Amino acid sequence: MKEFFNVTALGDVLGLAKDFSSVGAEKIDLIETSGRVLAEDVISDIDLPGFSRSTMDGYAVKASSTFGASEGNPAYLNIKGTIQMGEKPGFSVGPGEAAKISTGGMLPKDADSVVMVEFTEAVDETTIEVYRSVAPGQHIIEKGEDLAEGEAILTKGQKIRSQETGILAALGKEKVKVYKQPCVGIISTGDEVVPINTVPKPGQIRDINTYTLSGLVKKTGGVPISYGIIEDDYNALFESCSRALQETDMVIISGGSSVGTRDFTIEVLSNLPDSEILIHGISISPGKPTILASTQGKSFWGLPGHVVSAMVVFEIVVKPFIEHLGGVFGEKKTVPFVSAVLSRNISSAPGRGDFVRVRLVEENGVLTAEPVLGKSGLINTMVKADGLVKVDTNTEGVDKGTVVAVMLI
Amino acid sequence: MKEFFNVTALGDVLGLAKDFSSVGAEKIDLIETSGRVLAEDVISDIDLPGFSRSTMDGYAVKASSTFGASEGNPAYLNIKGTIQMGEKPGFSVGPGEAAKISTGGMLPKDADSVVMVEFTEAVDETTIEVYRSVAPGQHIIEKGEDLAEGEAILTKGQKIRSQETGILAALGKEKVKVYKQPCVGIISTGDEVVPINTVPKPGQIRDINTYTLSGLVKKTGGVPISYGIIEDDYNALFESCSRALQETDMVIISGGSSVGTRDFTIEVLSNLPDSEILIHGISISPGKPTILASTQGKSFWGLPGHVVSAMVVFEIVVKPFIEHLGGVFGEKKTVPFVSAVLSRNISSAPGRGDFVRVRLVEENGVLTAEPVLGKSGLINTMVKADGLVKVDTNTEGVDKGTVVAVMLI
Repeated sequence: MKEFFNVTALGDVLGLAKDFSSVGAEKIDLIETSGRVLAEDVISDIDLPGFSRSTMDGYAVKASSTFGASEGNPAYLNIKGTIQMGEKPGFSVGPGEAAKISTGGMLPKDADSVVMVEFTEAVDETTIEVYRSVAPGQHIIEKGEDLAEGEAILTKGQKIRSQETGILAALGKEKVKVYKQPCVGIISTGDEVVPINTVPKPGQIRDINTYTLSGLVKKTGGVPISYGIIEDDYNALFESCSRALQETDMVIISGGSSVGTRDFTIEVLSNLPDSEILIHGISISPGKPTILASTQGKSFWGLPGHVVSAMVVFEIVVKPFIEHLGGVFGEKKTVPFVSAVLSRNISSAPGRGDFVRVRLVEENGVLTAEPVLGKSGLINTMVKADGLVKVDTNTEGVDKGTVVAVMLI
Repeated sequence: MKEFFNVTALGDVLGLAKDFSSVGAEKIDLIETSGRVLAEDVISDIDLPGFSRSTMDGYAVKASSTFGASEGNPAYLNIKGTIQMGEKPGFSVGPGEAAKISTGGMLPKDADSVVMVEFTEAVDETTIEVYRSVAPGQHIIEKGEDLAEGEAILTKGQKIRSQETGILAALGKEKVKVYKQPCVGIISTGDEVVPINTVPKPGQIRDINTYTLSGLVKKTGGVPISYGIIEDDYNALFESCSRALQETDMVIISGGSSVGTRDFTIEVLSNLPDSEILIHGISISPGKPTILASTQGKSFWGLPGHVVSAMVVFEIVVKPFIEHLGGVFGEKKTVPFVSAVLSRNISSAPGRGDFVRVRLVEENGVLTAEPVLGKSGLINTMVKADGLVKVDTNTEGVDKGTVVAVMLI
């Protein structure tokens, strides 16, 4: 029996990502940062807010002026003035005094809290009754309560969500240093693969992988660059690979699954200058016949031609490499895994990690994961699937009724 | 006591989304479709694959020619020829015959299965030994097995993932009809709010909401259009709202939280031609003082000024409206909810839905949700949070140790 591959364990493959250098950084406008990766540590150079402000509409007071106040025994306070939004009050508020304030307004000197307008009544133009006591600090945000000057806020390698963009706005950062988006070259191979605007003849099939992989690269934060379909020819493949290597940060060859194409891929990856085959086979299914080379310091992938295999290998293996290139560091464990109850037994061969396509079905509030069966050449099974369930290397399967973690795809 | 709001239940608010019309459709290049929303039903006009093809490297055979074959008792088959990739074989394979085939190759006439090359040995140039039997259909994808001609594949209103783009590639659809991305106008108000390139004076604060809301609109598939910061002035706000209404599909006013600004917002929304206030207060926290108007058939939001409140209302309330405008229909229940164990008791006032910020912490394989405490004016609490946990309207809280669904933010 002929053994094609010297399979490598998934964990060992993923460990190689750190051997590739991240792409450089660029400065972009703050409004464009959402979804990008921060390339600098951010320390606050201000107190936020820069002044104590009200979180309610009402009256700024010294809390002690309201102690003991109730409906039956209101406190009477003198109105010292009205605070204008966006302005520093020109007066202070001492014992027995109050100043009209709106949400967001700046507390006057000596005031330490705000009484909600609901718990007051104007007696006349200069006096209010207060029906409830407040504690010092109540209904206000104190100076520096959100951010203190000198506080470390964001870390290089952090993904920027809308709230991170918001905090950078608060700091007045018009331009932000982020990692560039890694450019990923995509090459389809195989004499049977034809462009999508062609009507396939018998024996031919339209190029699907260029489209699925481009979508996945984009979703991962990269920029896909398609190099089209290359015929099963050593020279054509060599030339195309060389060009993609010069123009991008990572190259993915996919498609051609015939023996000839695979042989050419290995040969090209071996013969490119400064190139080493790191991986030839991974102990996962689908996706075993995956190739990874380090070529001129860049990661160069040979993905299996079957559409499902190529997508699964991308999600499980290639994606972490792109994230690494894109500067993502120390990612939080917030991968969108959904818990669901497995609807039927799934079996697996020990010694490899199986990734099973599942559809999620909600019934009576219970989320069920139903395996989507089908060969790894069937794109329709990925369309029907909502996620992947991993069956661990050392188990022989997972029993019906088990709660499984579904990785959304 | 003065009651500002006539609060509406969250479910009732969400039910109003369907009263607004979806934006129109446009045709875009297939390669751009990932992440967009399909605006047409898609029926397959082909069988995919268009021919039975091999999923392995080996020999195409009639399965019956291999029945009973074993290591000790191999079947001997005559090599009829080699199948060229992408071409229709010019010969058939009858009983006792075999044709060399690569993965993806077209099966010759009369062959119904493929023997893996690992289970064969070439005796000479015209004969192979086969050591294992195959069943009819084994190691092949039959014509139409992925898609059958006439099969309904994708549905109008479906979000296009990479695999949907892939199946559209298989069908040769160079252009795809998708919904336009809803344009969402964003207006910040408040005399205390200053542009981010300004150093705030005492009493002033930089505009955060324009940035957080723009990021959220983009993440939801919309196109944010900023109308800047408008001062607390009826005429200025009226003019700005009128312009935004003409140029976009939805408008969000946010920021100004002073009484004056709120009053102006209500007044402007009431006085715009063909405008009706639908909602003035929602029974959620944070986010109660939310306004929704229907103005010239468009949804017009007044969001609370506090940064956290504005973000939470967006995630919970505004987002489904944008998705509706963008054509999303009959969405699957695959919202990325993560299950986690609550680390401490959280209390809630009955009669409203509380959305509690939580940080996710993984320890020994257990994911814990730790409430992030802090006022709804503190953007830093959103930066520290990974998600929101909903405390239902009819409960008084959730106990420590409960498994909760965390909506990632």
